[in-house]
Amino acid sequence: MTTQMKVFAFDFTGPAHLSAGLWRHRRDRSEQYTNLRAWVEYAKMLEDACFDGMFFADNDGYHEKYRGSVEGALRDAAQLPANDPAYLVPALAAATKHLGFGITTSTAYTPPYAVARKFATLDHLTDGRIGWNVVTSYSDSAARNLGNGTQLAHDARYERAEEFIDVTLKLWEGSWDDDAVVRDTETGTYADPARVHEVQHRGEHFTVDGIFVCEPSTQRTPVIFQAGGSPKGVALAAKTAEAVFMNSMSKPGLKKQVDTLRAKAAELGRDPHHIAVLQMVTVISAPTDEEAWRKYQEYVGLVSYDGAMARYSGWTGLDMAQFDPDRPLEDVKTNAGQTMVDVFTKLDPGKKWTPRDIAREIGIGGTSPVIVGSPKTVADELVSWMDETGIDGFNIAHAAKFADLEDFAQYVVPELQARGVMRTSYEGTTLRENLFGAGQQRLAADHPGTAHRRSLVSQAQ
Amino acid sequence: MTTQMKVFAFDFTGPAHLSAGLWRHRRDRSEQYTNLRAWVEYAKMLEDACFDGMFFADNDGYHEKYRGSVEGALRDAAQLPANDPAYLVPALAAATKHLGFGITTSTAYTPPYAVARKFATLDHLTDGRIGWNVVTSYSDSAARNLGNGTQLAHDARYERAEEFIDVTLKLWEGSWDDDAVVRDTETGTYADPARVHEVQHRGEHFTVDGIFVCEPSTQRTPVIFQAGGSPKGVALAAKTAEAVFMNSMSKPGLKKQVDTLRAKAAELGRDPHHIAVLQMVTVISAPTDEEAWRKYQEYVGLVSYDGAMARYSGWTGLDMAQFDPDRPLEDVKTNAGQTMVDVFTKLDPGKKWTPRDIAREIGIGGTSPVIVGSPKTVADELVSWMDETGIDGFNIAHAAKFADLEDFAQYVVPELQARGVMRTSYEGTTLRENLFGAGQQRLAADHPGTAHRRSLVSQAQ
Repeated sequence: MTTQMKVFAFDFTGPAHLSAGLWRHRRDRSEQYTNLRAWVEYAKMLEDACFDGMFFADNDGYHEKYRGSVEGALRDAAQLPANDPAYLVPALAAATKHLGFGITTSTAYTPPYAVARKFATLDHLTDGRIGWNVVTSYSDSAARNLGNGTQLAHDARYERAEEFIDVTLKLWEGSWDDDAVVRDTETGTYADPARVHEVQHRGEHFTVDGIFVCEPSTQRTPVIFQAGGSPKGVALAAKTAEAVFMNSMSKPGLKKQVDTLRAKAAELGRDPHHIAVLQMVTVISAPTDEEAWRKYQEYVGLVSYDGAMARYSGWTGLDMAQFDPDRPLEDVKTNAGQTMVDVFTKLDPGKKWTPRDIAREIGIGGTSPVIVGSPKTVADELVSWMDETGIDGFNIAHAAKFADLEDFAQYVVPELQARGVMRTSYEGTTLRENLFGAGQQRLAADHPGTAHRRSLVSQAQ
Repeated sequence: MTTQMKVFAFDFTGPAHLSAGLWRHRRDRSEQYTNLRAWVEYAKMLEDACFDGMFFADNDGYHEKYRGSVEGALRDAAQLPANDPAYLVPALAAATKHLGFGITTSTAYTPPYAVARKFATLDHLTDGRIGWNVVTSYSDSAARNLGNGTQLAHDARYERAEEFIDVTLKLWEGSWDDDAVVRDTETGTYADPARVHEVQHRGEHFTVDGIFVCEPSTQRTPVIFQAGGSPKGVALAAKTAEAVFMNSMSKPGLKKQVDTLRAKAAELGRDPHHIAVLQMVTVISAPTDEEAWRKYQEYVGLVSYDGAMARYSGWTGLDMAQFDPDRPLEDVKTNAGQTMVDVFTKLDPGKKWTPRDIAREIGIGGTSPVIVGSPKTVADELVSWMDETGIDGFNIAHAAKFADLEDFAQYVVPELQARGVMRTSYEGTTLRENLFGAGQQRLAADHPGTAHRRSLVSQAQ
């Protein structure tokens, strides 16, 4: 059996996401980012093309490392301004039936009880089409605007995130029994109090001792996405993620990451294929290779150096303005330890990367590989990424907002479907079924969240 | 000129709101509370009837005072379960063009920066149809599940709320100039950094020193709703509210509240009519008085004593199970000081109120007046509330979910429109214009939020 390729459209509810300067392209429709009807049409187009879902990035803060100021980010709309993606999703859900929605939400500044209620509400309203991309926040600006001014250190953020997820799993899985809502008009019983339980969580970061305020939704727990590449991040993903979003620039590098994650999941007693791995790619497609490359060259001509550096400085915590744009970088360490410069060097060990090289590389789709070509070329490349790395599919970024994914749906999807590697219809109704097959609406039995289910708790007592 | 009556549909994103036991009525459609399409149809119906908007209650916690347990609330779905209303609104906005949406959000457990972003996003997506009902949270259960376990005292909560609102006003009004977004493709300038300002708020409860992450939305600041009846609550409303939701059981009591609020607003230099006052009422209507009263009697027959007491104990902080249901109450003081028993006694001074009387009274529409009758009877009564108290309109609660407001739209609205007291079309596109007339998309010049506008700040410097 051919592995079915999972395909998500990666987006951001601001005028510009990863690509620098591309909001100026005539095909880009960034000016529609606040337009509900434009997003609705876009979601319907993705569902017609049988996408598994949309995946929304988010960030509590903004980039302000480049030249020590937010100016570069403002000028290129480098992930700024940024609306909150969660409020867009219900309108998209009302216009679609199968498309799933992964929403990035941080564990840093909102109580886990509120986050649990957010996702339960969304899962109810979408009939089970919601995923939560768990992030821990990395921006100093977020700490200054939403917190007490200082961030937890990287590993401490992940420890907090682990407990945060644990609290939400207790609320989603452990508070209301499946049969708690009886709606018995004779006895006047909407919910049977004997089947609704206090979660009584007392941890290092959180105390939550009451019942959950929402009754169980279709999936109960939203599909848990994660993206962390650090050792702590991989450990947490191996334990609790159902889908992991990776962003490797090379197939060998990606294969290593996938193998490590699956091995760790297996060590923890989980089926390693109960984690769907999605690699970020940017696809520039057209009817022919020639037309696609022409489009790509047009895009590259619009890349903004400052816009790319505003992003890159924000991601790495390193002010790139201190370096000569045309002088090769050496021995540069970023705040995050493993440097992105290292990554570039690994990608092409013989090359001496300058800031300008990096800007050109990340200006289109950030650090994702960029695949350019005809339907056949793109399909060949996507299939080879799957075959050579063991991933389950892709999270597809864009250069021109809305336009590149419309091209993908028009040109590449029919080719993938003709080859039998991408679905031609939906087999279930929930996001979890899109990822793991019909009938898999709830957490798999080997996920730690199921330990909080009351039926299992009772058996253990 | 006849004052135009403002009309909102009051609702709650759970199976049951104020009315106790009524989810069991055959016309009630509480089972649709998670059904996005049912809510969309409902919103379209309200817009066809020219409602100003929908007003969503919310509560971070749940009722657990009655018999010292959440059991009574669970059994009658007494404001529990409860989804988060904010995620419903975008879907309703996508299907409508004029209907506004007031959303209750507390200042207790989420940072003001996140709340500002929430409402800016919603205001963008709805093209300016959003209001924020500011509440401070009153539930111990919320403090235990979302906070550190203990609540601030009542007045301290209002002090925190005042600073919270101030921070959000600075973000909405003071960070981005109206002309900050230039989208200049020639110079590659999306936003001009010189026109985006840090808010630099350093207060007792919050420090927020960065720029806002959202560009200005249609209304910039959502319409600010408040509902507090305490002295601190009235003072805050007089200073910052644009709409106040009142809930008086008698016309003389309401008139006194309205006069007090408007006098305080005038003392603060605001036009007292820049605050729209909406009184909560429950309306049971039918083609004739007789049919309406038959419907009402049917409803009263379904009122749940325990469901009413679960709510009443939660609202007052007083466990009503300690009293004999049939023995008149005397000298009962609630946690909140001014007692609801006092209110009942004022309503009918000759009467000795028993818990069972109270349950019957609040079982339909909580403590709101209940108006029962034909279109003519209801219209007469609504007009007399307006004429005798100086309010601007109503927030209409229901006994049977969806059904009673459908009746109101079908029976009462045409009568009000025929009398020229309710609109027959919308004069503007935003919620603020629904309340204050075409062209009033932004805060009025006498609202304290305008002091944060950079143009004014510059003039003052």
